Amino acid sequence: MTTHEPTSGGSSTRFDPWYDHYADRTAGLSASEVRALFAVASRPEVVSLAGGMPYVSALPSELVTGALDRVMRDHGPQALQYGSGQGTPELRERALEIMALEGIRGSVDDVVITTGSQQALDLVTKLFINPGDVILAEAPSYVGAIGVFRSYQAEIAHVLMDDDGLIPQALRDAITRLKADGKTIKFLYTIPTFHNPAGVTLSWERRLEILEICRANDILVLEDNPYGLLYFDSPPPNALRSIEEDGVIYLGTFSKTLAPGFRVGWALAPHAIREKLILANESATLCPSAFSQFAISEYLASADWKGQIDTFRGVYRGRRDAMLSALSEHLPEMSWTVPNGGFYVWLTLPSPLDSKEMLPRAVKELVAYTPGTAFYSDGGGRQKIRLSFCYPNEETIRTGIRRLTSVINEELELLDTFSSTGQMEVVRPNAHVTSPPPNIN
Amino acid sequence: MTTHEPTSGGSSTRFDPWYDHYADRTAGLSASEVRALFAVASRPEVVSLAGGMPYVSALPSELVTGALDRVMRDHGPQALQYGSGQGTPELRERALEIMALEGIRGSVDDVVITTGSQQALDLVTKLFINPGDVILAEAPSYVGAIGVFRSYQAEIAHVLMDDDGLIPQALRDAITRLKADGKTIKFLYTIPTFHNPAGVTLSWERRLEILEICRANDILVLEDNPYGLLYFDSPPPNALRSIEEDGVIYLGTFSKTLAPGFRVGWALAPHAIREKLILANESATLCPSAFSQFAISEYLASADWKGQIDTFRGVYRGRRDAMLSALSEHLPEMSWTVPNGGFYVWLTLPSPLDSKEMLPRAVKELVAYTPGTAFYSDGGGRQKIRLSFCYPNEETIRTGIRRLTSVINEELELLDTFSSTGQMEVVRPNAHVTSPPPNIN
Repeated sequence: MTTHEPTSGGSSTRFDPWYDHYADRTAGLSASEVRALFAVASRPEVVSLAGGMPYVSALPSELVTGALDRVMRDHGPQALQYGSGQGTPELRERALEIMALEGIRGSVDDVVITTGSQQALDLVTKLFINPGDVILAEAPSYVGAIGVFRSYQAEIAHVLMDDDGLIPQALRDAITRLKADGKTIKFLYTIPTFHNPAGVTLSWERRLEILEICRANDILVLEDNPYGLLYFDSPPPNALRSIEEDGVIYLGTFSKTLAPGFRVGWALAPHAIREKLILANESATLCPSAFSQFAISEYLASADWKGQIDTFRGVYRGRRDAMLSALSEHLPEMSWTVPNGGFYVWLTLPSPLDSKEMLPRAVKELVAYTPGTAFYSDGGGRQKIRLSFCYPNEETIRTGIRRLTSVINEELELLDTFSSTGQMEVVRPNAHVTSPPPNIN
Repeated sequence: MTTHEPTSGGSSTRFDPWYDHYADRTAGLSASEVRALFAVASRPEVVSLAGGMPYVSALPSELVTGALDRVMRDHGPQALQYGSGQGTPELRERALEIMALEGIRGSVDDVVITTGSQQALDLVTKLFINPGDVILAEAPSYVGAIGVFRSYQAEIAHVLMDDDGLIPQALRDAITRLKADGKTIKFLYTIPTFHNPAGVTLSWERRLEILEICRANDILVLEDNPYGLLYFDSPPPNALRSIEEDGVIYLGTFSKTLAPGFRVGWALAPHAIREKLILANESATLCPSAFSQFAISEYLASADWKGQIDTFRGVYRGRRDAMLSALSEHLPEMSWTVPNGGFYVWLTLPSPLDSKEMLPRAVKELVAYTPGTAFYSDGGGRQKIRLSFCYPNEETIRTGIRRLTSVINEELELLDTFSSTGQMEVVRPNAHVTSPPPNIN
């Protein structure tokens, strides 16, 4: 057998003797475009604006080392052992303190610790989705959520956003249309704050309106909030869960404010749902890692974690600024969103450029990005690009945007040539450097 | 809301506004009997022979602390970061070295690291099981596997065992019967070595025969082997995967030979299946914990891990001996299995004692065990008890068996009284202290 052969996803050309044994849902499993990019982007000469890796080097390692030493000294046998399927009471208390920063009040009894918030996404989907059930999600939406939803054979209905996030009327229209089609809508999946990939934030007024719509239509809300504490200027509006308790499952994570390597996230769920979440958690992994939970509890108890989040904010703010100013300088005719927090800028290419088709040429020019199609379940997003400013430093970001500019310009020149022969028309969007376009979809 | 209220599983008496929103599969989620016992058994005055917690205190904490320090010193940013969905190449190499001890040869490319082997169980089931598909499993079988199988709406068909493990003719008969009923059999789930809960080991001849039967019937084998290295006398027969490569998915774990707190296990799968396993792993958790993987790799690279496994063997051998001699002394008329490794003794009560009904009275006498019904999906096992010797020390084990003896004797006296009035007949099994009963089912 070959070593180091990249996995080719669901479409292996090798003979698979178990081909007819798989479950129906397995047909929905395919390698994401983000994933395929990891191999490419990890080559050192490529500037990757593709991944969503937090810059963990901004975390002083002695803060972690100290916490680890205390875990082994004070809690060794417990940290090395199996634990509760709900997670440790200590860490659940800490999760409540963190959520309080976003206006959330809850009971430690309703927090369930999971193996990253990705696993909470998986478990909630497992609990609610029969094949063919509909999940409402922003257009675009988090690639990892789309993957989970597909793996349980959900139908994903994208709802338009603009600069203020999900558009309430678009949500109403989608619900009406889906109900008329006899569909069963199970929940709305939303990243209201510093959206991945769109970078926008749902306004306070819309938060109230979206919740009202969901309440009226008996639709559960799954609020995914990995980036809320990573704001650059003023804090974002409070979480949806701060407004509505019974209709919202809130997902949080330590991956962006501490480190993803521990794989610890959590769900805060209405009481009856969290009972089922614990059972699903136990079924999937018996319990979240006791060691990781103790390590994070110790870190939170001893380190100035709020100060550390300020440090992260400063790092990411500088990188966002570097990206925005490089975009203004090099691509003034393009349009993009201006995030007030989080990791991502969402760029719109001039029609008819295709971000997915352009990617191999970009990688040849030593810059990688995530094509917009990764964030749609319906083939949308070809004119979009997600640019991450979280991991590379400011200088590298500027280099990356310069390279991206060359690629785009070469594509446009090529198209201009075709266009002048009457074969294709290039439509350059209006420039929106300081004010992003009203509809980023 | 109440704090510290125990979770009551799927049957909450509270009003659940989302009751009609759950997926069909969620009806299969229920609190296991083992789980309910955790709360009871954690009271310090109760001797628990119920859980399956390894005795991690036999692991010198400096071995772990040293490994943790080196992880942060040499690999900090990687260990704190997201990683590959397949797991680190270093740890996959180590897993191959460990499997080589059981005769397995494989490619590092076909190992997938998971969040404990429980998650591998979950992912394999997700990949293969449509609602109503049949999984063959020993009678009894691992309670955590039964939970996973139910959560994907599998039908579980138990196959009889005896002292030499799964009975080949019983397997043939089950397959014939299920096929005649038009059922789709997807895989055989088996713990061939130091079975949980039965304590028995599949003989070498039967390993060959079972694989032959599965091959002939196009049935995949899911070999779960958490205890294989924890033998007390001579090593057990080589793993099923050492004989057959294309038809076996092998599951391994660091939970019993190192510590469960890291939640790291692995699957070695046929190539086409492992591609799908990686995708399912990424969908469920993005990636296994990089920190845990680095910690285990460092431990394995620096500590005398084989010597440490010898230490564990010695501890568990002593505890098994204490349990067997206490059983011989106090319950000479009962029968039980004599394990050559692992964590469990499987005790048969005299008819008509019911292990589940007896449990509350046992807890009142300050001893806990797992009733046999936890290990059957069909209500079987009422006459059986799983006794764990892994966690309590020898003296505590003897105390536990003495208490259990009192409970059993009280029950028997009560029944004798009824019996003498002609209402019930007590059938005491023949004593099988040195030679366990031929059929432990």
